[in-house]
Amino acid sequence: MRNLTLLTDLYQLTMLNGYFEKNIHEDIVVFDMFFRKNACNGGYTIVCGIDQFVEYIENISFSGEDLKYLKSLNLFSDKFLNFLKNFKFTGNIYAVEEGTIMFPNEPIITVKAPLYQAQLIETTLLNIINFQSLIATKSSRVCFASEGDPVFEFGLRRSQGPDAGLYGARASIIGGCSATSNVLAGKMFDVPVVGTQAHSWVQKFDAELEAFESYSDIYPDKCMLLIDTYNVLNSGLPNAIKTFKKLREKGYEPLGVRIDSGDLKYLSNECKKELDKEGFKNIKITASNDLDEYTISSLKSQGASINAWGVGTKLITSAESPSLGGVYKLSASFKDNKFEPKIKLSENPEKISNPGFKKVFRIYDKNNKAQADLITLHDEVIDTTKPLEIFHPVYTWKTKTFNEYSIKELLKPLFINGKCVHTKKTVMEIKKYVQDELNTLWDEYKRLLNPQIYKVDLSKKLWDLKTDMIDSKK
Amino acid sequence: MRNLTLLTDLYQLTMLNGYFEKNIHEDIVVFDMFFRKNACNGGYTIVCGIDQFVEYIENISFSGEDLKYLKSLNLFSDKFLNFLKNFKFTGNIYAVEEGTIMFPNEPIITVKAPLYQAQLIETTLLNIINFQSLIATKSSRVCFASEGDPVFEFGLRRSQGPDAGLYGARASIIGGCSATSNVLAGKMFDVPVVGTQAHSWVQKFDAELEAFESYSDIYPDKCMLLIDTYNVLNSGLPNAIKTFKKLREKGYEPLGVRIDSGDLKYLSNECKKELDKEGFKNIKITASNDLDEYTISSLKSQGASINAWGVGTKLITSAESPSLGGVYKLSASFKDNKFEPKIKLSENPEKISNPGFKKVFRIYDKNNKAQADLITLHDEVIDTTKPLEIFHPVYTWKTKTFNEYSIKELLKPLFINGKCVHTKKTVMEIKKYVQDELNTLWDEYKRLLNPQIYKVDLSKKLWDLKTDMIDSKK
Repeated sequence: MRNLTLLTDLYQLTMLNGYFEKNIHEDIVVFDMFFRKNACNGGYTIVCGIDQFVEYIENISFSGEDLKYLKSLNLFSDKFLNFLKNFKFTGNIYAVEEGTIMFPNEPIITVKAPLYQAQLIETTLLNIINFQSLIATKSSRVCFASEGDPVFEFGLRRSQGPDAGLYGARASIIGGCSATSNVLAGKMFDVPVVGTQAHSWVQKFDAELEAFESYSDIYPDKCMLLIDTYNVLNSGLPNAIKTFKKLREKGYEPLGVRIDSGDLKYLSNECKKELDKEGFKNIKITASNDLDEYTISSLKSQGASINAWGVGTKLITSAESPSLGGVYKLSASFKDNKFEPKIKLSENPEKISNPGFKKVFRIYDKNNKAQADLITLHDEVIDTTKPLEIFHPVYTWKTKTFNEYSIKELLKPLFINGKCVHTKKTVMEIKKYVQDELNTLWDEYKRLLNPQIYKVDLSKKLWDLKTDMIDSKK
Repeated sequence: MRNLTLLTDLYQLTMLNGYFEKNIHEDIVVFDMFFRKNACNGGYTIVCGIDQFVEYIENISFSGEDLKYLKSLNLFSDKFLNFLKNFKFTGNIYAVEEGTIMFPNEPIITVKAPLYQAQLIETTLLNIINFQSLIATKSSRVCFASEGDPVFEFGLRRSQGPDAGLYGARASIIGGCSATSNVLAGKMFDVPVVGTQAHSWVQKFDAELEAFESYSDIYPDKCMLLIDTYNVLNSGLPNAIKTFKKLREKGYEPLGVRIDSGDLKYLSNECKKELDKEGFKNIKITASNDLDEYTISSLKSQGASINAWGVGTKLITSAESPSLGGVYKLSASFKDNKFEPKIKLSENPEKISNPGFKKVFRIYDKNNKAQADLITLHDEVIDTTKPLEIFHPVYTWKTKTFNEYSIKELLKPLFINGKCVHTKKTVMEIKKYVQDELNTLWDEYKRLLNPQIYKVDLSKKLWDLKTDMIDSKK
């Protein structure tokens, strides 16, 4: 992991310098990271990138070169730059487990730390979590559309720079993809990699059949052929079938064909017919070419004979909605052992933040399906032997009572007094956890268009605090 | 620069292994990088990222760990892995100068190298050039809309990972932005950085006025205040004016205010009125909040009193169109000193590639405005003492003759026999070059919606070759 200490907005540093000058930089504060709208215009968001966030926190350190550069900006006192030299994160961070499904307005990471530390990390925290959560969510949507068919992540060449390709591949696997074409991602994250040949392989040989036979010579047990370089039905498919027959004579079973252009429904169905007729009933027909969850869903509903999907540009960039708008807001400040909740107001009611140091509980029914989330203040306890009533934070007359239920607290310690208390899981373990999480969610929330809105309510105590603070600022 | 050697698609390596097994890996080939549609649905594309591409080529090297990982995939022979150990790029690369404006279907990078080398670099080349060209183009559009007002790049927290923030900031400056909030980008690329305070600064103090006065104490000569934490007109603006008056008494001129929410047209006009009335006529009113070229253009046409723009998410992700679809196609193969042009066919006519080793010429009128581009084969020469007739590659009856004109050849050597022959320019020099390039282009091509289509034609010789090859493959 590179040192990302300076990968931040300048205003974090001008504010830090200001806090330092005013001698309030050591005040303990609480910041919450949350988002106001789900990723991909969907009904839920998968939180991803926690491991990289941990690495970032553990590696914060201003080098001599960094400090020399900051000095050159003529914005900071020497005393402050000297202070930065020994910067080390010493606070507490609470976060949901990587792969947890979350919803708008609930804290997914809460930082309780000296002001200058909590402030500095805002930009990089958001950068890491926003992107990976976006792509993990997108990937889960694409896999929802593929209905169990394997989805391969092929987007590196169109990703927004090297990191986007790398961490986007990680997030895609976590969200549900079976493999990635990205070799470095395979190496770094120990995830399956996949790939066969490009059009240039076929073009390089004098004839398509020669290209196919050369490939099958070298990879007889992994023979997947790209059949659209010249013409799928008149050239690619007949040449593939000839190659497959020879392979079989040598005792190998071919893997499949890939189609990367044209009408994927029509071509896949024609290929399937021919391949069946020639005795290749178990062949994989992989499709690629600007796919996303909507195209896959449409091809599925039209009965395309495709059973593996290569998804590139639109997955790795979440093209339809290429950012998750995670924010990081001050929610409390401890001064002289006094607790002061903080609020950010706005003309837009949905932009008003939830004040105070908080917890998030998920409420499950007896079948382990998630029913609602409840945000409380940190000192609140839920007695699960008693019925639990929640109410809507805007339409307060809307209430719901749970009788037989269980709860899970979602924010868990990640750092305590600057020490990481996080147990790292493998990417494939996180991927498994995401599947478990998705199983707790009714399909109504996973629908690609117009999903049902999941309930996230406030405890009475938190609601009262928020309402009082809004009134006092009026 | 990190080593990006494994940041590639697995199929590049399976193909390399195949070429090696077939002993055709040393064949000299020509690949072209080009795109089929301009970035951002616009009328032109600014090529960006050449410096990072050069660094990538110079740093390709398979480490012992890389080779161990590749071996673990059970796809490659030991002989091949041993061969990779000594991989070094030894070929030629021709590229347009960084910052050049280019159009669909013309080569922007041409690689003439041994097959295994030219093939390996495809994915990373596309990753680097596609993203930076996308963002440089987006930035130029945003700056076109701002009509000379400074635009600040504020997108790091929403960029697609650390590199996207970093190289996106570089590309934004090259495309026209005045400064970035990204400190690491400032340090690495020696570009101006900018930033003041966030809402959390204002929230941290007991009162907004105290927050403003504290800020102005520390940065009296750089006092730009964020005025929308509670209420712009009832609180933020009056508190800012009080602070500005005190500053003036101390002999400092305030810089400005920033508004980050609400109706930016209404609020900026109200602020301007008040500030003028109070004698602060030269104050900068900076706006931010989900801006892009269309919103800026609309606010401008409504007469908003904004004269500096902070643009985040939608610039750094090119949200409306978050990828540039650059491709890399085999166009020729030299075998036994014989030149064989190569073509990729497609059912979609616009997806058929241009065969052969080629050059690109730009034709200028006597006022140095670009008139058209002409793609020729590599051995063609244009005699500028004679009139030049070009014709449309699809509608061949459309012709145009130039009498008084000059030409520029766009592809220049970047690597010769593996040696870099590129003179590196600073980012600020490239930014200047982009402005010069944009000045050669009529505004018709820069229009945000429905721009005029710039002419890119083929020489007669190239057109004949392409037509013959299409006919022979039928």
